[in-house]
Amino acid sequence: MRIGFIGLGNMGAAMAANLLAAGHDVVAYNRSPQKVAALAEQGATAAESVRDAAQADVVVTMLADDNAVETVAFGGADPAEGLVAAMPADAIHISSSTISVDLAKRLAAAHAEARNQFVSAPVFGRPDAAAAAKLFVVASGAPAAVEAATPVFDAIGQRTFVVGDEPSAASLVKISGNFLIASVIESLGEAMALVGKAGVDKQQYLELLTSTLFDAPVYRTYGGLLVDEQFTPPGFAAPLGLKDVKLALSAGEELRVPLPVGSLLRDRFLTLLATGGGELDWSALGALPAWEAGAPHPA
Amino acid sequence: MRIGFIGLGNMGAAMAANLLAAGHDVVAYNRSPQKVAALAEQGATAAESVRDAAQADVVVTMLADDNAVETVAFGGADPAEGLVAAMPADAIHISSSTISVDLAKRLAAAHAEARNQFVSAPVFGRPDAAAAAKLFVVASGAPAAVEAATPVFDAIGQRTFVVGDEPSAASLVKISGNFLIASVIESLGEAMALVGKAGVDKQQYLELLTSTLFDAPVYRTYGGLLVDEQFTPPGFAAPLGLKDVKLALSAGEELRVPLPVGSLLRDRFLTLLATGGGELDWSALGALPAWEAGAPHPA
Amino acid sequence: MRIGFIGLGNMGAAMAANLLAAGHDVVAYNRSPQKVAALAEQGATAAESVRDAAQADVVVTMLADDNAVETVAFGGADPAEGLVAAMPADAIHISSSTISVDLAKRLAAAHAEARNQFVSAPVFGRPDAAAAAKLFVVASGAPAAVEAATPVFDAIGQRTFVVGDEPSAASLVKISGNFLIASVIESLGEAMALVGKAGVDKQQYLELLTSTLFDAPVYRTYGGLLVDEQFTPPGFAAPLGLKDVKLALSAGEELRVPLPVGSLLRDRFLTLLATGGGELDWSALGALPAWEAGAPHPA
Amino acid sequence: MRIGFIGLGNMGAAMAANLLAAGHDVVAYNRSPQKVAALAEQGATAAESVRDAAQADVVVTMLADDNAVETVAFGGADPAEGLVAAMPADAIHISSSTISVDLAKRLAAAHAEARNQFVSAPVFGRPDAAAAAKLFVVASGAPAAVEAATPVFDAIGQRTFVVGDEPSAASLVKISGNFLIASVIESLGEAMALVGKAGVDKQQYLELLTSTLFDAPVYRTYGGLLVDEQFTPPGFAAPLGLKDVKLALSAGEELRVPLPVGSLLRDRFLTLLATGGGELDWSALGALPAWEAGAPHPA
Repeated sequence: MRIGFIGLGNMGAAMAANLLAAGHDVVAYNRSPQKVAALAEQGATAAESVRDAAQADVVVTMLADDNAVETVAFGGADPAEGLVAAMPADAIHISSSTISVDLAKRLAAAHAEARNQFVSAPVFGRPDAAAAAKLFVVASGAPAAVEAATPVFDAIGQRTFVVGDEPSAASLVKISGNFLIASVIESLGEAMALVGKAGVDKQQYLELLTSTLFDAPVYRTYGGLLVDEQFTPPGFAAPLGLKDVKLALSAGEELRVPLPVGSLLRDRFLTLLATGGGELDWSALGALPAWEAGAPHPA
Repeated sequence: MRIGFIGLGNMGAAMAANLLAAGHDVVAYNRSPQKVAALAEQGATAAESVRDAAQADVVVTMLADDNAVETVAFGGADPAEGLVAAMPADAIHISSSTISVDLAKRLAAAHAEARNQFVSAPVFGRPDAAAAAKLFVVASGAPAAVEAATPVFDAIGQRTFVVGDEPSAASLVKISGNFLIASVIESLGEAMALVGKAGVDKQQYLELLTSTLFDAPVYRTYGGLLVDEQFTPPGFAAPLGLKDVKLALSAGEELRVPLPVGSLLRDRFLTLLATGGGELDWSALGALPAWEAGAPHPA
Repeated sequence: MRIGFIGLGNMGAAMAANLLAAGHDVVAYNRSPQKVAALAEQGATAAESVRDAAQADVVVTMLADDNAVETVAFGGADPAEGLVAAMPADAIHISSSTISVDLAKRLAAAHAEARNQFVSAPVFGRPDAAAAAKLFVVASGAPAAVEAATPVFDAIGQRTFVVGDEPSAASLVKISGNFLIASVIESLGEAMALVGKAGVDKQQYLELLTSTLFDAPVYRTYGGLLVDEQFTPPGFAAPLGLKDVKLALSAGEELRVPLPVGSLLRDRFLTLLATGGGELDWSALGALPAWEAGAPHPA
Repeated sequence: MRIGFIGLGNMGAAMAANLLAAGHDVVAYNRSPQKVAALAEQGATAAESVRDAAQADVVVTMLADDNAVETVAFGGADPAEGLVAAMPADAIHISSSTISVDLAKRLAAAHAEARNQFVSAPVFGRPDAAAAAKLFVVASGAPAAVEAATPVFDAIGQRTFVVGDEPSAASLVKISGNFLIASVIESLGEAMALVGKAGVDKQQYLELLTSTLFDAPVYRTYGGLLVDEQFTPPGFAAPLGLKDVKLALSAGEELRVPLPVGSLLRDRFLTLLATGGGELDWSALGALPAWEAGAPHPA
């Protein structure tokens, strides 16, 4: 399959490499071209522009935020340079980054009008999981398009969950999942601040949790980062965590669903950014409860 | 081993039965005697008083709250009727209910003065786990006492975690664990209110979570209760959830550790109790986000 | 002075009438023309379009939200129809509604480029204060423009506060003021839920507060509405309250200032809207604490 | 009138001096005797013990917290040394400090049984208001007792509000009032962090607020402290603020009234105490929002 791939950050570069490894033709584009060169050494074709990368059966975008996806999809100053206009008829745009429900709806409408296909397929997993092709893919869109995109999902992930016919559904599920991860970081941070200040060994405490009711990757991964206070280099930087919590709050505003834990997380991330933690991993959020209890700041 | 057992509620009755099944002599006491009769049919000896039950190598208490434990331990109006005074020298009092850090400290001091031993050994698990001898035991106290109490732990649980020499440590860990469970209920309730109002199937959503990062008993158990809206009969009633959150907040006050998620949970439990949910399972807390978003109240 | 006036809602109609009463020529425009007719009977000239109303020394906009102001200022589909393009050179656009800091900045830049002037001058006061020309005006912008706009402020308000040279400053101050009002509604609502459930008379309680430390209009006005449970017809509807709290949160995100009370208010307003209170006065927010404590819902 | 006065802190010493100035006989007791000596120079009789001070028509207690009041009232180790046992029949105990609803109920019951009278009469005002006899008194109790206590209230305050027949009512109203003050400190602190970080002058901002809707002593007093960042010496120390917020939360738990702003304040005070602010005035709470936004800590 000929696959355009746009966005070669930590996550995207690993995903594109796995598509190559699975035997696909990958035409790669990135705003800063060095990253394209690195991938070209693994066999990818370097695209000069979004329009170049758009000439494919499937185009995957893995970009930082809504703004970046909008620019790539709609072409910024020149709509003809955007994916929506440039993709061949019936080609499929797979958006794998975490985008807002609102943008997912607008992309679905624009691609439909341009007679392309749009599938929202955000992924769960940090860069190590992306490198190992162990991501979890959450996909939604027209069933035929999702079906046709399956080889892509198989190459990058360990399992795909189809959650509906509307592309926005996958975006919302992904957003809610990141909200749940952040809520684990916060509550685990509070629990560790509490038992830690009483002298309980945090490593042992985490082992107890993850041997019993909390035996899940989310507790092992983020609990481990909290115990080790290992917040740099970031696997997923704090500003991205704030972005995703804001997407959850924004979806809640649209649907009129109050999210008090989400609101707390928003304020926590702002605190983290305002006090020097803007370049830390988002798990540093979980060090703020101890900071408020008198321990040093994580930054 | 001769074991006094005081407190035959849902949890205690199952634990005492497993002690019998493991071949121990159990002398059981409960404030309402019918429950003692039921256990006597399984081979227990009925005690007429706390003082009677205290004549043992080990005495386990499994009672509703601090007040109940205090009355049993210190005898209420007549100190001579309490465990502390009535237990033989060197006998071990194992407190398996969730008690405050403060009470754990007072019990440790009182038993030390009376030349008894005190081990705090609260358990994780709902009544079905208690019946199956699958509880997780968190124990702390003098090493020799904890060692001597091991046969009791083995009979009621699947694994024991020793978290320190101070009995209050196990109480704090248990309190923090219940806080973490409640925080999962709340955040999962918020996430489900969000995706549910957008039309995503909750059962499918839960399967996605528990197949990926959230593959842990706490998400399966409480997520399942939330999907099924199955809040009655209560496995662990809402007022007990409030009690435990208050214990966490109180420990935080003592240690000067703010717990914003804990504060939210406190307010949520009060709302649940004030709006007719006092007899529901504590997982009904997770239905309040949807209620605030316009869905019916869980009660 | 020739004054264009755009937006004749509860507030705007009263302000325009006071401008007429002060002897100014008012050219009025409103999307639904009936309201223009009513004002024309008091002496105003009816404008057929924004462009018509723009032919003046000063143009006041008093519109519902950022979207409405953007459309009027930038003309929507046809930029030539917007205020920015249509106003004569050196004319002054006074924005009196509560708009975002971001929009205030964009308007200031656009008007500067078009060689007009822009003053942000939001007002504090409910419709009765607008009718009585007793508003408080918070103004910021280039000193000469603010000076030139003074006759307008004098006609509609009892006092004007100039808070800086940047138009966005007045918007931020106004947003923060509405945040403070909403926080009074919430905290007073909590206090009244507490003492009210204990049997203390709420009217007497409010008198005590407003005779002592809390002797301020904000407590008298909103406390009175809470005591009387008088939430309809709305003086300032709940969705507008939500809008303003979101503006405060959004300004905080831009500046990286966490606002936990603001977050609570956001969630409260969403609850109010999701549970049937969307047409109530925003003071109904203060009835939610009692609702959560078991009292009937205000809607 | 012969008045026993127990508790000569910042507030109590000033109140007792005003009772002397009004011509009453004051028999003063304080745990540390130096403060009694200072008052004796103004004409008071020094009492050697609580029992001594209890020999009066009226006994006023102005003590730090529930524990101190309990010890004085019930005599600690020796009940005969407590006020309840030692006061003559029909004498009136006036409790002027902020005590819990629960303790107010227990004191009312105990005095009734001992055939004394009990009036709860907490006061609003900081030490300067106490010195100027400008306190506001909130009183409740049996009407005859409140009537008989009026000369005391007149000597220390500018106005007395009678809020019911149950002594606990005045305690609850006072607790709720301190909650409202703390909520003003918090929300004003958030608003100032927001506008201050944007460059608005805080002094000017406060003048705007207190000239308009927020024209009340609570905004002038606490806003002034926040603008000046004048948190030491404390007029009312942070740990007392925490104590009072906990009394509000505790009253809410008893009545099943959730208080989310109260919960936020609790966590804020814990943060303040845990990060070195334990000796600051409670208004330092309002500096924490700016601290979380990157400004220096107030301690």
